[in-house]
Amino acid sequence: PQGTRDQPPAHMALRERLFAAVVACFKRHGAAALDTPALELRETLMGKYGDGTKLIYELQDQGGERLALRYDLTVPFARYLAMNKIATMKRYHIAKVYRRDSPATSRGRYREFYQCDFDIAGHFDPMIPDAECLKIVHEILSELKLGDFLIKVNDRRILHGVFAVCGVPESKFISMCSSVDKLDKMPWEDVRSEMVGEKGLSPEAADRIGQYVQLHGGLDLIDQLLQDPKLSQNKLAKEGLGDMKLLFEYVTLFGIAGKICFDLSLARGLDYYTGVIFEAVLVQQENNHMEEPVSVGSVAGGGRYDGLVGMFDPKGRKVPCVGVSIGIERIFSIMEQRLKASGKKVRTTETQVLVATPQKRLLGARLKLISELWDAGIKAEMLYKKDPKLLKQLQYCEDTGIPLVAIIGEQELTDRVVKLRVVTTREEVRITFYIRIQKC
Amino acid sequence: PQGTRDQPPAHMALRERLFAAVVACFKRHGAAALDTPALELRETLMGKYGDGTKLIYELQDQGGERLALRYDLTVPFARYLAMNKIATMKRYHIAKVYRRDSPATSRGRYREFYQCDFDIAGHFDPMIPDAECLKIVHEILSELKLGDFLIKVNDRRILHGVFAVCGVPESKFISMCSSVDKLDKMPWEDVRSEMVGEKGLSPEAADRIGQYVQLHGGLDLIDQLLQDPKLSQNKLAKEGLGDMKLLFEYVTLFGIAGKICFDLSLARGLDYYTGVIFEAVLVQQENNHMEEPVSVGSVAGGGRYDGLVGMFDPKGRKVPCVGVSIGIERIFSIMEQRLKASGKKVRTTETQVLVATPQKRLLGARLKLISELWDAGIKAEMLYKKDPKLLKQLQYCEDTGIPLVAIIGEQELTDRVVKLRVVTTREEVRITFYIRIQKC
Repeated sequence: PQGTRDQPPAHMALRERLFAAVVACFKRHGAAALDTPALELRETLMGKYGDGTKLIYELQDQGGERLALRYDLTVPFARYLAMNKIATMKRYHIAKVYRRDSPATSRGRYREFYQCDFDIAGHFDPMIPDAECLKIVHEILSELKLGDFLIKVNDRRILHGVFAVCGVPESKFISMCSSVDKLDKMPWEDVRSEMVGEKGLSPEAADRIGQYVQLHGGLDLIDQLLQDPKLSQNKLAKEGLGDMKLLFEYVTLFGIAGKICFDLSLARGLDYYTGVIFEAVLVQQENNHMEEPVSVGSVAGGGRYDGLVGMFDPKGRKVPCVGVSIGIERIFSIMEQRLKASGKKVRTTETQVLVATPQKRLLGARLKLISELWDAGIKAEMLYKKDPKLLKQLQYCEDTGIPLVAIIGEQELTDRVVKLRVVTTREEVRITFYIRIQKC
Repeated sequence: PQGTRDQPPAHMALRERLFAAVVACFKRHGAAALDTPALELRETLMGKYGDGTKLIYELQDQGGERLALRYDLTVPFARYLAMNKIATMKRYHIAKVYRRDSPATSRGRYREFYQCDFDIAGHFDPMIPDAECLKIVHEILSELKLGDFLIKVNDRRILHGVFAVCGVPESKFISMCSSVDKLDKMPWEDVRSEMVGEKGLSPEAADRIGQYVQLHGGLDLIDQLLQDPKLSQNKLAKEGLGDMKLLFEYVTLFGIAGKICFDLSLARGLDYYTGVIFEAVLVQQENNHMEEPVSVGSVAGGGRYDGLVGMFDPKGRKVPCVGVSIGIERIFSIMEQRLKASGKKVRTTETQVLVATPQKRLLGARLKLISELWDAGIKAEMLYKKDPKLLKQLQYCEDTGIPLVAIIGEQELTDRVVKLRVVTTREEVRITFYIRIQKC
């Protein structure tokens, strides 16, 4: 189907390494695994994704419930917490999600793709779990050696405060968020035109917004905004700025403040965020050849969503949550390209030894030996031919990267040994190994 | 949704262990990983599953292609081989499949469930890959310690030969297969009535079939049938019996013949099998209390399907395949029940140490210490409270099974040490560790 793809072994080998690194990090931070069905009730997903709702895959009505394929892992997590009345949980979930998007497969955008999510649910002291999410992003991006990166942070409350003090009517807040979010792709002038032209904002309000959302910095900027005569009077903005200060304190203790940038242009698209939001981007390496720089974009993102669980609870009980989603598909694209460029071949199997025979009528000996190897936990293969040529067997090792060949011929059977050969160097050792076998 | 379920952390921990054992075995046998989309074109799935076709989940027509959720992993594998013109491949695939079946969740039957498949595609000498599939089933069931088991084998060619020599018209072969397949659940008399009453077979033909399909045994039975005056004249049956003899020779070399039983009542439901078929069943332990024996049924199955790939190739080029599917959901149900009965608690996280403080205003020290632990690859947690009570922190360790606590208090900060305590024994050691920290 359009926008989907098979993952051949060469991809899977790289993917497995990636997933293993991500899962190891999630487990290091004490997360438990959770899995939810790929199918959800249609009503569970409706009204959670803003513009995204129209991209939801729905199932045919074949009698029974109206079903849809999950759009992300966050809404199912919130549904799970509410359904089971769970108030505290730290979980990770790696699974496929589905979006009827216009696929841009060359840029790693598919209709079926993996998400890798880590979320912390529960009533806690401010910013401690939020800071841990940033630490996780930092650990994963560092470990994968993707190059230099930056984690932009902002807070929905600060943005809403900015909109309020700039004179934006509250009904336009979400729509303004989506305009501001485009600042990483287009200049302020264009975003301003969209606000004023398409969205009917007054030019004065737009200009006032422009003075804020183009700011970015660190602790100094937070302090500056806390002293801003207008913003400091706004309750939400003040809360957001206070928490942002705390967040910077904690990430400094974590030793990762150097990669964190408070960026007022970060808005993020999803409806459900209520507090801190963040996004990690790869920083383009300097390009001496003056080529067109390739935009790599966001490789992780997340934020706080304190209201989502309450939407699924009959009594509206809230469970505050903060979480991070690793953009594994984009990371995979980058690593795949890099691997391609390096010309290195990835092994798709882990076979340690090929069991081979140099003469005919020795299939029985091969079967017996390989069976003993398997039972000893050794990864072993043999050719599925009764009497394969030795050259063909050695060729198979070279093609698939098997490092060792265990050879049993007439002589070896008589001497009660197996000849173990290193494929690349052709070094050989004889190992005592008695096979009691009739030729077949 | 009906027939689906969330997999909470306690399930996931057990599942991960199961999957790891299965994947380790598949890799030991040199298989590469392959993943295909959960969505397939509707036409890919149609006409492959016999009665199963009506259980396929179809997606709503939202413009574009007609899509359906995969029903198994075998048809997508065959589609992949044909699409990419691959003639040789050994792959495993662990993923969810979807069937709009009447769910029987208490017996581990769901509408969304995992399949764990290992398949070998390619033109090879007879029965070598087929025997390896049986070896794989043997290795996995032995390793999981599910109790005694038996692997029943048969061959579609032998069954077809039996039907032919018993005077069954060829048009009734598939329908007769499905009747014969019920012999593990109902006595021959009932199966015979179905054949004669519902399916319009002559009573004489049914009686002749009855004399064959109730037979089971080993090499002796194969030899007996090879000398059977009627069956030995049937080309297909003779081929099947010859290969069965070879299979027994190979599994004897693998040392697993004791668990293999040639059983003429094994037929298996799917349309696409063309040769050897097999199914592993757990053998009920003796029950001294004379209780109703619980039927655990099949825990693995598979067979040879030499025609399926050709159905997807425009030129009909055939790629012979043989494969095995591990019934992971049923195995999971059994292990879960066993775990429940044992009263043992499964840890859902792998956290090694909790970072704790006995006094107030030491959050900074905790953050700094835990950050160093994470960076050193140690699985560590802390409570997300500014000033948690020590008792609460220790309680958290007991609740979640964290074995160690790293304690830093005023005294430890002064002494430049961390106190490491074993939760169960309360043993303590002091470790030199200097945290340069301002209290916060």
